[in-house]
Amino acid sequence: MNPTGISNSVIKRLPRYYRFLGELKKEGMTRISSRELSDRMHLTASQIRQDLNCFGEFGQQGYGYNIELLQNEIAKILGLDKPQNAILIGAGNLGKAIAHYINFEAKGFHLIGIFDAKESLVGQMVRNVPIRHISTLDEFCRENMPRAAILCIPKEASKEICNMLIKLGVKGFLNFSHYDISLDHPDAEVENIHFGDSLMTLSYKLSN
Amino acid sequence: MNPTGISNSVIKRLPRYYRFLGELKKEGMTRISSRELSDRMHLTASQIRQDLNCFGEFGQQGYGYNIELLQNEIAKILGLDKPQNAILIGAGNLGKAIAHYINFEAKGFHLIGIFDAKESLVGQMVRNVPIRHISTLDEFCRENMPRAAILCIPKEASKEICNMLIKLGVKGFLNFSHYDISLDHPDAEVENIHFGDSLMTLSYKLSN
Repeated sequence: MNPTGISNSVIKRLPRYYRFLGELKKEGMTRISSRELSDRMHLTASQIRQDLNCFGEFGQQGYGYNIELLQNEIAKILGLDKPQNAILIGAGNLGKAIAHYINFEAKGFHLIGIFDAKESLVGQMVRNVPIRHISTLDEFCRENMPRAAILCIPKEASKEICNMLIKLGVKGFLNFSHYDISLDHPDAEVENIHFGDSLMTLSYKLSN
Repeated sequence: MNPTGISNSVIKRLPRYYRFLGELKKEGMTRISSRELSDRMHLTASQIRQDLNCFGEFGQQGYGYNIELLQNEIAKILGLDKPQNAILIGAGNLGKAIAHYINFEAKGFHLIGIFDAKESLVGQMVRNVPIRHISTLDEFCRENMPRAAILCIPKEASKEICNMLIKLGVKGFLNFSHYDISLDHPDAEVENIHFGDSLMTLSYKLSN
């Protein structure tokens, strides 16, 4: 359990509920039974009832869930209603694609700065955010106090940058690098995305 | 347990062992004690011994693990020594970045084709692989029999493409789309990468 009283395994499922409810809304639906939601999400109805128990007021016997209210409630729990400032480090192929591709605002963050060590990239705009030189990172963080950083840099560069960011008050990382942030900074909140590990796992599954 | 006799929780950790051993090799090391490996990876020595029990011949009391032999053994188990053909669907920002950024060959795959619906992209090269029109996908698959597909297309397009690819013999997916492949195709091997869900989870952790 954690401070909100919701177990971590439920938390892990919340983004998926949030996405599904958004799709139902797009389809024009306003409410859904836990049975139908369970059919669509391939979870048992009892699992869903258990998961969403914390939002009991939105699930009523014989009525089901009010989709918009439930989605809004999940948004609040996820903190999506109060976006936090984030910066992106590394504007190579991956970093640029992430900046272009992800709708940060819909996922709880404002992207307020992009940084790279390459002079030739400085001044380029990615989705209305200018790329700045990494040497200005310290000053930028002191002024703008980002809470989160997206790391799209090689492992070798990540350790030093991470140390610096944590000293400057950054609390969380979306980590595409292979640097294992939690080893040195057990208190940092980290979500790792390792394409390579996913590919190797897929390779294993297809080989055996 | 699965056909190799190695439990799934061990399999999930193998890519990380593989990466760590590669780094030790780069540092010029040839062997390592389970104690030192455990310090570096922040796993208990007993966890590591248990995990690598299957490779018992490489761990000897008083000697530790032969790094190269152990890494090679893990590579074999992951299937990295016999790369499989893969195609990438969707050559937008994300698809191009993935094609540029990931060293498929080191992760168990040959990237043999990239496909998109946009005529203007057709013929462009990404890492020596030409972008082809999606209308040629069927013919290409019949000729080249890819085993895996990387999906970098929107959810709406994914369902139809997936159905088609599975009929054409594709067995595994690295799925960046929000289409839930396993719901319709429980036998397909799927690794999902959902940036948005990771960001929302991070937002939750930073909000509470």
